[in-house]
Amino acid sequence: MINEVRIEEDVKRWIAEDISFWDITTSLIPKSKAEAKIFSKQEGIIAGLRIAEKIFEMMGADFKPLVEEGERVAKKAQIASIKGDIHALLQAERLALNILGRLSGIATHTAMMIEVAKETNPEIRICGTRKTVPGLSIYDKYAIVVGGGDTHRFNLSDMILLKENHLQKFRSISDAISVAKSKTSFSKKIEVEVQNEEQAIEAVTAGVDIVMFDNFSPIQVKHTISKIKKLELNVLVELSGNINLDNINHYSIEGVNLISSGALTHSVKNFDLTMLTE
Amino acid sequence: MINEVRIEEDVKRWIAEDISFWDITTSLIPKSKAEAKIFSKQEGIIAGLRIAEKIFEMMGADFKPLVEEGERVAKKAQIASIKGDIHALLQAERLALNILGRLSGIATHTAMMIEVAKETNPEIRICGTRKTVPGLSIYDKYAIVVGGGDTHRFNLSDMILLKENHLQKFRSISDAISVAKSKTSFSKKIEVEVQNEEQAIEAVTAGVDIVMFDNFSPIQVKHTISKIKKLELNVLVELSGNINLDNINHYSIEGVNLISSGALTHSVKNFDLTMLTE
Amino acid sequence: MINEVRIEEDVKRWIAEDISFWDITTSLIPKSKAEAKIFSKQEGIIAGLRIAEKIFEMMGADFKPLVEEGERVAKKAQIASIKGDIHALLQAERLALNILGRLSGIATHTAMMIEVAKETNPEIRICGTRKTVPGLSIYDKYAIVVGGGDTHRFNLSDMILLKENHLQKFRSISDAISVAKSKTSFSKKIEVEVQNEEQAIEAVTAGVDIVMFDNFSPIQVKHTISKIKKLELNVLVELSGNINLDNINHYSIEGVNLISSGALTHSVKNFDLTMLTE
Amino acid sequence: MINEVRIEEDVKRWIAEDISFWDITTSLIPKSKAEAKIFSKQEGIIAGLRIAEKIFEMMGADFKPLVEEGERVAKKAQIASIKGDIHALLQAERLALNILGRLSGIATHTAMMIEVAKETNPEIRICGTRKTVPGLSIYDKYAIVVGGGDTHRFNLSDMILLKENHLQKFRSISDAISVAKSKTSFSKKIEVEVQNEEQAIEAVTAGVDIVMFDNFSPIQVKHTISKIKKLELNVLVELSGNINLDNINHYSIEGVNLISSGALTHSVKNFDLTMLTE
Amino acid sequence: MINEVRIEEDVKRWIAEDISFWDITTSLIPKSKAEAKIFSKQEGIIAGLRIAEKIFEMMGADFKPLVEEGERVAKKAQIASIKGDIHALLQAERLALNILGRLSGIATHTAMMIEVAKETNPEIRICGTRKTVPGLSIYDKYAIVVGGGDTHRFNLSDMILLKENHLQKFRSISDAISVAKSKTSFSKKIEVEVQNEEQAIEAVTAGVDIVMFDNFSPIQVKHTISKIKKLELNVLVELSGNINLDNINHYSIEGVNLISSGALTHSVKNFDLTMLTE
Amino acid sequence: MINEVRIEEDVKRWIAEDISFWDITTSLIPKSKAEAKIFSKQEGIIAGLRIAEKIFEMMGADFKPLVEEGERVAKKAQIASIKGDIHALLQAERLALNILGRLSGIATHTAMMIEVAKETNPEIRICGTRKTVPGLSIYDKYAIVVGGGDTHRFNLSDMILLKENHLQKFRSISDAISVAKSKTSFSKKIEVEVQNEEQAIEAVTAGVDIVMFDNFSPIQVKHTISKIKKLELNVLVELSGNINLDNINHYSIEGVNLISSGALTHSVKNFDLTMLTE
Repeated sequence: MINEVRIEEDVKRWIAEDISFWDITTSLIPKSKAEAKIFSKQEGIIAGLRIAEKIFEMMGADFKPLVEEGERVAKKAQIASIKGDIHALLQAERLALNILGRLSGIATHTAMMIEVAKETNPEIRICGTRKTVPGLSIYDKYAIVVGGGDTHRFNLSDMILLKENHLQKFRSISDAISVAKSKTSFSKKIEVEVQNEEQAIEAVTAGVDIVMFDNFSPIQVKHTISKIKKLELNVLVELSGNINLDNINHYSIEGVNLISSGALTHSVKNFDLTMLTE
Repeated sequence: MINEVRIEEDVKRWIAEDISFWDITTSLIPKSKAEAKIFSKQEGIIAGLRIAEKIFEMMGADFKPLVEEGERVAKKAQIASIKGDIHALLQAERLALNILGRLSGIATHTAMMIEVAKETNPEIRICGTRKTVPGLSIYDKYAIVVGGGDTHRFNLSDMILLKENHLQKFRSISDAISVAKSKTSFSKKIEVEVQNEEQAIEAVTAGVDIVMFDNFSPIQVKHTISKIKKLELNVLVELSGNINLDNINHYSIEGVNLISSGALTHSVKNFDLTMLTE
Repeated sequence: MINEVRIEEDVKRWIAEDISFWDITTSLIPKSKAEAKIFSKQEGIIAGLRIAEKIFEMMGADFKPLVEEGERVAKKAQIASIKGDIHALLQAERLALNILGRLSGIATHTAMMIEVAKETNPEIRICGTRKTVPGLSIYDKYAIVVGGGDTHRFNLSDMILLKENHLQKFRSISDAISVAKSKTSFSKKIEVEVQNEEQAIEAVTAGVDIVMFDNFSPIQVKHTISKIKKLELNVLVELSGNINLDNINHYSIEGVNLISSGALTHSVKNFDLTMLTE
Repeated sequence: MINEVRIEEDVKRWIAEDISFWDITTSLIPKSKAEAKIFSKQEGIIAGLRIAEKIFEMMGADFKPLVEEGERVAKKAQIASIKGDIHALLQAERLALNILGRLSGIATHTAMMIEVAKETNPEIRICGTRKTVPGLSIYDKYAIVVGGGDTHRFNLSDMILLKENHLQKFRSISDAISVAKSKTSFSKKIEVEVQNEEQAIEAVTAGVDIVMFDNFSPIQVKHTISKIKKLELNVLVELSGNINLDNINHYSIEGVNLISSGALTHSVKNFDLTMLTE
Repeated sequence: MINEVRIEEDVKRWIAEDISFWDITTSLIPKSKAEAKIFSKQEGIIAGLRIAEKIFEMMGADFKPLVEEGERVAKKAQIASIKGDIHALLQAERLALNILGRLSGIATHTAMMIEVAKETNPEIRICGTRKTVPGLSIYDKYAIVVGGGDTHRFNLSDMILLKENHLQKFRSISDAISVAKSKTSFSKKIEVEVQNEEQAIEAVTAGVDIVMFDNFSPIQVKHTISKIKKLELNVLVELSGNINLDNINHYSIEGVNLISSGALTHSVKNFDLTMLTE
Repeated sequence: MINEVRIEEDVKRWIAEDISFWDITTSLIPKSKAEAKIFSKQEGIIAGLRIAEKIFEMMGADFKPLVEEGERVAKKAQIASIKGDIHALLQAERLALNILGRLSGIATHTAMMIEVAKETNPEIRICGTRKTVPGLSIYDKYAIVVGGGDTHRFNLSDMILLKENHLQKFRSISDAISVAKSKTSFSKKIEVEVQNEEQAIEAVTAGVDIVMFDNFSPIQVKHTISKIKKLELNVLVELSGNINLDNINHYSIEGVNLISSGALTHSVKNFDLTMLTE
């Protein structure tokens, strides 16, 4: 799904980072054909197979995935089988597991949040943020999609998101939205972050595409949504601010369209995987 | 500490990733001088100030750290003050917090593990592994050092580490070590991963620099160390395999020199920071 | 406005392209301080001053613009004054004029189309397309903005645009839109290209953000818009297909929101500029 | 003809520019084999087939040209047939047509100028200038060659070209030429730009390889050439300065060897092409 | 042995350096299949076959080595046979011979030094230094290994080497070593350069891994080694300072483990090779 | 003289090569201001000061050359004085001396060959070849110029040089030259390599710019030149093939314009320099 040219360039950089000169340990053993298997050591969603494949491919080995991208696997499931020279296998192993582990970790965590959130609001979308790891943001966003989530904007060129720091430079929220509409390409959506109900109503009335409630309590959320509905305007409601797996059930309220969570990418628990060589 | 040329290249790539074209939101507001402050939202160790500084610097803003690299800060402590155009401040904010948050998270976690481990063994060193995030491994390793830990080898070119998959290609562990000594530069250390006491003794006898006990129980560790000590050879003992903050007290045993933990870098909890603009 | 890091990387590549080794002609003359002036040789809109400045800056010269970015200048107007070593001036000259000439040419042509189009529909927006020059698309898009136009989507990651080739893979236009809505991030707009009135109505009814009439005659445009208006849905209408300065007055019809024109960037007439050295 | 390594690097950069993350529209449809055909929508010379091929190739599709590079095609001629996954075809389409269109536009325009110019002087060569698009200058030059023209020097490292700004730093034109001869590699030619007949004679007498008449009228050209011929020296005469398709017949005079025209590359009219997918 | 990704990136850069645009001479001849052979014009050790192969491979030709990497060949031996288009062969020829010639030159010179040195001390290792050619240091180090030598540290991140300039910043050599041990990763060795016997004994006593005698006379070497031996500590002795093929027999003394020589890489005599095309 | 952008990119790559992560030795000492001096340890010509300056500059130190580029210095002459942090000085030292040493070595050797050659033919030019070190060819060529020599063509895009392998693809040498003249840009010179007098005369008669005598004996050279002179054509004569400092006096014959020598760059003896830190 991610542009192949981009994957190739990144994989090259990662390999060069992990092998400055040559692998001084593997150089001690002769080249010979070998096989390896990657197994899950936990239950969850697998993401990043194409990237792992590229890593082995660039080392000269043949990687065959045994599960689908995005598939939920049990603990001890075989994820892939790999054939190639023992040098290729040993040199690709750690790097491939590092990226597979991170992306599967993100996908699995996303799926868990979605599962909980949909119990109280089946229409909810769980979204990422820009709190990604520098250099990996495309991959982090991609893993959210594999887990069933929504990328949110990729970066600062991708959507208008007027936050408090921007808004204070305008006369009013309506003024900011009006300027945004006239100065921005029609191809971009406009979102505004609001701090209270009054601001929310002003933003929606001014015709914003998405309104983000920043750190609203569940009660404030409900109340503000009921007010907004009366405006009968086409707008999405996003909640943001320390919403996580523990408290998301309180926020996944009818009328909320989107919940974004920085923890999906800024505090990832790696998915546990292992590679066994035969 | 990290090579400045490398930091600059990486920061450029990260900025280009976060601003494909231009920041369409900030473009809506006029340029004007502004000030910002970065605050901690938790207690811990700060790491990555020079990198954050570079990000603001490349955007044209002036970043002044108010704490030392590696300093332990309280919650709500001011970390830095920044001056520059409001555009620069808003465009650098997320990226700078992403890297500062990750590196401080790693440093803080490292320091916590060290604190616990030193209670039972004041000589212990806590080490990283190659389970880093692709593209960020130098930074991840650096944060471990800031937190008081040991980088371990940076990559496959950095030290001989004979693991099971390598060893099975030799007649014996001693044979492997003998080959490694003759074929590898004198400038490199040699470490061997062993699965049991017998292997440990064979490796130490063969003159390895470091012996890594893979998944030994605390009792096995103690027993094996007592045997090794009798050999009166100059060797370091490393423990590896799912040792974490919860169980490290059981492993930080007298005679153990090093404990390595993949979780330090593969499952980072970001340090919580915020930037306030005035 | 364009990300400075990106400008710097591109300017470096352009300089390396124009000076493989060293400038063998300028090397013949001694270094000495000199001044130069850039003049327009035609009337129009200036775009790209920051980029020209960067080129001179990287050569070590000081570039001072005398007009605003986007300003309309008369023939023979002085655009900039430059001070620096004669070597820097002569080496930057052609490259700076090449980019200034292209971007000002695009901005000027955009402004001309807008002027004509607004006579019949003051609300119209003139947009670019992806028919840009490879490697320069960000700059080409930027110049359209300077000329008063709209970038349209920057690239394939920027907005959903379902064209005929995509639509034929779905059961119906409504089906395509429904899939797009469920599978795409909320942060992205959805546009559909239609070939006739019936398709237009289907797309608008299905809730598309923008509907593009492909090669409609002015009469078809009017008729279809009248039908769409009755649906009372929030949608933008874009016209596309060989609309240019000669015929745009026929297409700039009330109710049309956007007209896109590939010629803005694929067949640019350079703005005529000259640099005089003293 | 262009170095393949260079083409590959450029194509990668162009693809990354056009697909920042992934193609969000094409991602909506399943992968399936498809075929496409590229047709001309005008008469002219085709240039850039190898580059278009590379673009499709890097996307994983198979591009088969049906005309020769440099072949003159009629309107509605089929230029190429392409097979591959529908994703590859749709993602490569615009980029391939952008470069094919530009290069064929340059080649076609070059051929037109040559045709007219040769009517009055069959020995004439039509040359490009350094007024190319930044980043594309090699391709622009190449297209001129395909159209039957002469690249002229590629860049500032490629030939000595003493212009007015250089000459005023020497005591005289002869002095400049003498310095150039002694300080420059024997492998480089020396050209001097002159403003009048007197300067032309001085330059030729001093042993320059090429003399460029800057903005001479046809009468001045003839007169000066007759004077130069009497010197019986081995020199080429180049004309430069706003010579275009409309007036070239007045300048393509016997004795003129070269006419250079910036418009060949600075104000390109794209060749009109279309891709149809089956 | 060298990371393939790194080789590929470097070869691309070298090709781009040698063919800025296109090979203007070879472009004059038609494409046709051809064969070529590479012959030695001197006796010695061949190094760099994989890199030469990559160069031909990237040009589209098939390179088949006829000797092993590191094999000693006679004068006029055939080294490789190559098949491919005549364009590929002629464009790769010079570049391939340049790198093969340099690396084989280094390997051959290394082997000569080893041969002489082992006559007086069969246990000696001959090492490189950081006096390599910028941009080629990995290749230079690799060629030393092929010749039977030792890379020594690759770069400043690779081993602690405390030289005089570092030592003078500490209270004493022992202090420096103590600081190094506590602040550096366990995975790194520590070497100290000493100027006299007293310093040597201090360093060894402080537990350094390697002690480098800087410009010691053979008599000083012998004397100091006899003193060190009495300490019965595990340390390697390295000699450094203008030791070359002419005088190495005087320095290859029992008890010396390593002799390093900058001349191996800073003043290389290219191995003489030729390519004949049929 | 070399394009600054190119120097900066190369220096960055070299620094990254020499400091993969950070300088683990220098990190042990505190930052403090220091001064250093670079001295020659031999007599000769200095080349590469600007590049050494850039290396120190990028490390943050201030490099002040005390001699001119191309100046002949005595043994023990001070070449430069440097001020900056001790970290910067120690990290730049080796890299700066490596490039200064190589370039000064080339310049010195070139000057020596010129000195000898001019004794017998004061008009002779000594030229380089393409036998440079991959990645450094621009620098190697530049050093030849500093030493008083001629770069010869930089690369395969720079001049037509028809060698035996090319010529055998044509009906005759005259045919080859005729094709070259018609197919190559007027801006390029044409050189032909010949094996005997007959070929030399054919080439000169056909109007080549330079004729290269390949491995002619001094007697053949004289004889062939006397024949060529009678043709009264404007041509340069180049000698090539194992001409070096020992035998150049035999080849530097009246009528020879150019002697090229691969040894100038393929077998460089580094100029001996040292840096002393205070």
